[in-house]
Amino acid sequence: MDLPTLAKQTHGFSGADLANLLNEAAILAARQEKSGISFQDLEEAVDRVIAGPARRSRQISEKEREIIAYHEAGHALVASSLPDADPVHKVTIVARGAAGGYTRLLPDEDRGLWSKGQFQAMLAVMMGGQTAEELAFGDITTGASNDLQNASAVARKMVTEYGMSEELGPRTFGTGQDLVFLGKELAQGPNYSDAVAERIDAEIEGFLKRAQQTAKKVLEANRAKLTLLADRLLSEETIDGAELRELLAGSPKEAPLAAD
Amino acid sequence: MDLPTLAKQTHGFSGADLANLLNEAAILAARQEKSGISFQDLEEAVDRVIAGPARRSRQISEKEREIIAYHEAGHALVASSLPDADPVHKVTIVARGAAGGYTRLLPDEDRGLWSKGQFQAMLAVMMGGQTAEELAFGDITTGASNDLQNASAVARKMVTEYGMSEELGPRTFGTGQDLVFLGKELAQGPNYSDAVAERIDAEIEGFLKRAQQTAKKVLEANRAKLTLLADRLLSEETIDGAELRELLAGSPKEAPLAAD
Amino acid sequence: MDLPTLAKQTHGFSGADLANLLNEAAILAARQEKSGISFQDLEEAVDRVIAGPARRSRQISEKEREIIAYHEAGHALVASSLPDADPVHKVTIVARGAAGGYTRLLPDEDRGLWSKGQFQAMLAVMMGGQTAEELAFGDITTGASNDLQNASAVARKMVTEYGMSEELGPRTFGTGQDLVFLGKELAQGPNYSDAVAERIDAEIEGFLKRAQQTAKKVLEANRAKLTLLADRLLSEETIDGAELRELLAGSPKEAPLAAD
Amino acid sequence: MDLPTLAKQTHGFSGADLANLLNEAAILAARQEKSGISFQDLEEAVDRVIAGPARRSRQISEKEREIIAYHEAGHALVASSLPDADPVHKVTIVARGAAGGYTRLLPDEDRGLWSKGQFQAMLAVMMGGQTAEELAFGDITTGASNDLQNASAVARKMVTEYGMSEELGPRTFGTGQDLVFLGKELAQGPNYSDAVAERIDAEIEGFLKRAQQTAKKVLEANRAKLTLLADRLLSEETIDGAELRELLAGSPKEAPLAAD
Amino acid sequence: MDLPTLAKQTHGFSGADLANLLNEAAILAARQEKSGISFQDLEEAVDRVIAGPARRSRQISEKEREIIAYHEAGHALVASSLPDADPVHKVTIVARGAAGGYTRLLPDEDRGLWSKGQFQAMLAVMMGGQTAEELAFGDITTGASNDLQNASAVARKMVTEYGMSEELGPRTFGTGQDLVFLGKELAQGPNYSDAVAERIDAEIEGFLKRAQQTAKKVLEANRAKLTLLADRLLSEETIDGAELRELLAGSPKEAPLAAD
Amino acid sequence: MDLPTLAKQTHGFSGADLANLLNEAAILAARQEKSGISFQDLEEAVDRVIAGPARRSRQISEKEREIIAYHEAGHALVASSLPDADPVHKVTIVARGAAGGYTRLLPDEDRGLWSKGQFQAMLAVMMGGQTAEELAFGDITTGASNDLQNASAVARKMVTEYGMSEELGPRTFGTGQDLVFLGKELAQGPNYSDAVAERIDAEIEGFLKRAQQTAKKVLEANRAKLTLLADRLLSEETIDGAELRELLAGSPKEAPLAAD
Repeated sequence: MDLPTLAKQTHGFSGADLANLLNEAAILAARQEKSGISFQDLEEAVDRVIAGPARRSRQISEKEREIIAYHEAGHALVASSLPDADPVHKVTIVARGAAGGYTRLLPDEDRGLWSKGQFQAMLAVMMGGQTAEELAFGDITTGASNDLQNASAVARKMVTEYGMSEELGPRTFGTGQDLVFLGKELAQGPNYSDAVAERIDAEIEGFLKRAQQTAKKVLEANRAKLTLLADRLLSEETIDGAELRELLAGSPKEAPLAAD
Repeated sequence: MDLPTLAKQTHGFSGADLANLLNEAAILAARQEKSGISFQDLEEAVDRVIAGPARRSRQISEKEREIIAYHEAGHALVASSLPDADPVHKVTIVARGAAGGYTRLLPDEDRGLWSKGQFQAMLAVMMGGQTAEELAFGDITTGASNDLQNASAVARKMVTEYGMSEELGPRTFGTGQDLVFLGKELAQGPNYSDAVAERIDAEIEGFLKRAQQTAKKVLEANRAKLTLLADRLLSEETIDGAELRELLAGSPKEAPLAAD
Repeated sequence: MDLPTLAKQTHGFSGADLANLLNEAAILAARQEKSGISFQDLEEAVDRVIAGPARRSRQISEKEREIIAYHEAGHALVASSLPDADPVHKVTIVARGAAGGYTRLLPDEDRGLWSKGQFQAMLAVMMGGQTAEELAFGDITTGASNDLQNASAVARKMVTEYGMSEELGPRTFGTGQDLVFLGKELAQGPNYSDAVAERIDAEIEGFLKRAQQTAKKVLEANRAKLTLLADRLLSEETIDGAELRELLAGSPKEAPLAAD
Repeated sequence: MDLPTLAKQTHGFSGADLANLLNEAAILAARQEKSGISFQDLEEAVDRVIAGPARRSRQISEKEREIIAYHEAGHALVASSLPDADPVHKVTIVARGAAGGYTRLLPDEDRGLWSKGQFQAMLAVMMGGQTAEELAFGDITTGASNDLQNASAVARKMVTEYGMSEELGPRTFGTGQDLVFLGKELAQGPNYSDAVAERIDAEIEGFLKRAQQTAKKVLEANRAKLTLLADRLLSEETIDGAELRELLAGSPKEAPLAAD
Repeated sequence: MDLPTLAKQTHGFSGADLANLLNEAAILAARQEKSGISFQDLEEAVDRVIAGPARRSRQISEKEREIIAYHEAGHALVASSLPDADPVHKVTIVARGAAGGYTRLLPDEDRGLWSKGQFQAMLAVMMGGQTAEELAFGDITTGASNDLQNASAVARKMVTEYGMSEELGPRTFGTGQDLVFLGKELAQGPNYSDAVAERIDAEIEGFLKRAQQTAKKVLEANRAKLTLLADRLLSEETIDGAELRELLAGSPKEAPLAAD
Repeated sequence: MDLPTLAKQTHGFSGADLANLLNEAAILAARQEKSGISFQDLEEAVDRVIAGPARRSRQISEKEREIIAYHEAGHALVASSLPDADPVHKVTIVARGAAGGYTRLLPDEDRGLWSKGQFQAMLAVMMGGQTAEELAFGDITTGASNDLQNASAVARKMVTEYGMSEELGPRTFGTGQDLVFLGKELAQGPNYSDAVAERIDAEIEGFLKRAQQTAKKVLEANRAKLTLLADRLLSEETIDGAELRELLAGSPKEAPLAAD
């Protein structure tokens, strides 16, 4: 880890978050009786601030550990394969907070705008977890519920706030949530007919199912690498971006057929 | 009962629940003027903490006792027959709280994830009670209302939170209940069209009716064992997991045809 | 009246209700300067606690008295004819509270469960009043509004809470009314689509119209007894269960064709 | 006016209403320096309590006076022609409160029940006003809005509370308005589907349009009497029940064809 | 202006309005150092009380002045051409309050009732402004929004409160707005199905589009007079009723074809 | 910049806004130790009051800068090409507040009325940004969300408040938001059926998609000028109205085919 990477990882942090980050890092360094804060301390501190301390004490069955490994490997592999996705910074099956593991990406630039293509890649990455479970075990678990909720929210915004559905066109669709006064919100509800609500649903469903298709294509075309990654996670618990890229070398970053 | 069984049974207990449990067990032991707490005391204490004290004083007609025996036997027999269901810990027709009887399962592991297959088995077990009433008496009673309510809630979550309906795909469907501010919740209501609500209903109905089919297949294929179990409950009132497995020995744990 | 009958009649009474009951009986006995409380005093006291004091002072036209007599005779005759209905304890055209008359049944046992068959018989008994008006006068009145409201509520529960509609299957349908916090209730409303609401309506309507059919069949097959009962009510005002059974002797308790 | 008539007219009055009535009558008598209260004073006092003092000072154009006369004559003529309608007590075009005139009926008996036939007659009487305007002037006015509102409410109750629609059958349809707790009412709304709401609307519309047909038939068959009555109202302002019956003598009380 | 005209113009004024009116007139007279209040002062005072003081300082482009002149000429010409419309009292393009100009009518009588024919004429007058813009410039502006809002409200009342739609018949349609208690209003909402709501919309639309047709017919048949009137308004700013009638003399008051 | 331009730019400013404006200008002048306020200071002060201070410190990637340049060039080019659009005052890619850049128009006159034609031109200008992104990069970004939201609100008002949809005609459609009392607002919601809501949606969509078509036609017909403008913005950051007109000279202000 170096300074630019740290800067990207802490993109969007408030002043208080940054103070908290340095404090955590200082505590970690002090525990090890080091005289200064290393980048390694900062890395761990970033994880703590974002997701809480590692929960190594939690009992996890072997079976669940395996499911989690394939789930995270799925996210990482899809992210590594799509040109419009941000590069992977770290994959881990160390549980933090409510999550059994996580995959952290590094945004490429000081991004102020998101394009439709970037959103579509992001959705495919989110689908990578559950799709990997399905491929590896023929069954899916509740572990993807957070991914699905976030993907649903992104797809909704694409359609209702950013005019990214050609079918519905250059229009926004509100639910009155911006209004400040309680009474007014109540009086309004969604400002469109149920026929439009159906079309919005169809477009959201389309973005999500196409993203799932993309994830499936990537993973099916790279089953060996999926297993390799999951196995490495089971033995090493955590893989950083550089290791990941080395592991996947030989896998050229080609885009799968992009539907829509 | 041994320590691991006690641990599984009290999975999800808070510190206060555990304190309460030990207190109840100590009282039970003291009443019998025993010098220590036995596993039997703990077993009874677990039941008291979960479902309230036994209501032996309540008058129940012979007919109702019989209905309850077949109802619980149905739950236990379906649970014993499906590989994805947790093993049965105890079946009883001793009334506690509002329930005329109950069947307690033992979760297999420190479970953090639920798979679609496990949910489907759980739904079939829930359906086992009413289905047994229908088979034995050709009529059904209000006794299953709690089972049906729980099963409906599980099936809804499978469809709306866990992406387990292929038809609706990898999407979550909210009702705004996660939002913290009252006004916002009000303004939102369900965030999907009535056409999607219909499809959600159809999927929930599908999961429940298929589960009922599974329960029916298991019970029709094992009518003699159903009667055996109900009769034993009528004479013994309570059967523990080991006795149950002995009673059903000779009934190999084969999966019925799993629809969907 | 004897002790077991009193016990059945006061099923569901709270301690305060029972205290109230004895107090009323004591007052009645004291008014008559009796030294003890008779069963007759208790009987009257039960009626007072359930429905208020008799309103003999109220002016009722002869025509209305006749309508009420046929209405109550209808309830009693249907109840006496259906095996799944509870036995009749008393029929009366003495007005109490808002009711012009009433028919009181005696539950057969310490009932904890209601079967679908018992609910269907109960619905037919409720329909007996208005159906008798129609048969006797070719017109119906507002007198049945309470019966219809109760029957509608029972039919709804059969469909939405007890899984007693084969069409809708083993599912419960909520309206969010169980939730404790105001805001949440508002955000939810019924948790099903309008298509399901239509099917629920169709099932409720089916249960009610079939019950009406059953009541009609019973009463049309027993027109002479209906007139006999109504005439007796007009002359005697009140008929108890034993008198009723004597009056209807010769009418074997056969079940009419039960639809559904 | 005699005592029984006074009693019928004040049916439903509270004790305070009756005290108010006597007070008004006493004031009227005192103004005329009479030593006692006459029935005439009581009659006027009843009108004041129900509809406010007469507004003779209000300027009304000749045209409007004529419209009001035909409107009230329409009510009175329909009421006089339908056997199920209560007898007319008084018709007047003296304005009181917001009304330009009114027709007062006398209920036949101490009525506790309303039959479907009586409701249908009542609806036809309510329609008589606007229908008479249409027949006499070929145009209708805002003067009927109160009649229409009351008729709509009666027709709704026939369908949703009294089971008087054969199409919808013996069921009640609530809107949750009986519930005491604010939150619960809000959470519920109408407890039926929009398909049922449509059928309720069709039945309400049917009752109202058939009542309008009945009114039209009566008035078209009695155009000469309508004019006679309206003319008498224009010259005399008020007609009491006896005068009305005399005026219409020769018009046998035959029922028009009753649809439904 | 004379006394009867003043009385008609101030129809519906409260006592406070009248006091305010006299006060304004007195101030106007005092400013001009007159010893008494003239009818001219009262006329100006009426305008001030109804619409606020004239806004002569406001900058208006020549183009907008022309649009406003045609708009008001349209109202005045339609009102002058329909027998059921009230006579025009004054037309002006002097801005007051938010309005760029206005056309004031004089109600014919102490009106207590409105007929369907009078409402239809009123709607056509309201449509006259925008229709004149369309005819003169081939484009329409936001200047008609107030007319359209008022016309929509009138048409809605005709259909939902006054039974003036033959299609929907003698029924009123509420939205619960009369109820006093907040909770109850919420629980109710519109008391009819969406199918009825569609029919209400169709009838409102029908009344409004037919009124627009009527206005169009009148104005197309009188284009020269429209231009004459607009030109006069541009040069004189204000035209009173007598001048208007003189200007339009030779234009017999014939009714255009009245649809519906 | 001269005085009339300043006046147009500050149209709609309150007294406090104007005081704020002069204060900002004075501070800017003082910082440069000037003895008086120049028009240049006022120009910068207007921008600060409307959109906040320039955010030059914000890091923007080259790619994003290019996207913003094309986006703003799109707005400016469409505005310069449509006769009904106001003239462009300034285009810039200097970020202020949340916006990456902006295009400021100068209203032509003291406008009190907006015509349908002017609204349609305004919508096309709003669409110019996203359409230019699509043309230049084949992808669109979140940068247009504000344009789309404003355009959606304008199109809605055209249809529901100004009667500018021929299909829906001279009617306004409310959502109860004008009512002052909370309860009433809640009870009402939209005062039209879902069928009308669909037609409103179709008309809004029509206005927006036609505006997008217009923008597309203008930009496709002027691709070289679009590139010229975007390049100039990348090198100069800001272009004022006079420079823009010079740059586009040779591009006659011809209207593209106006749909609808």
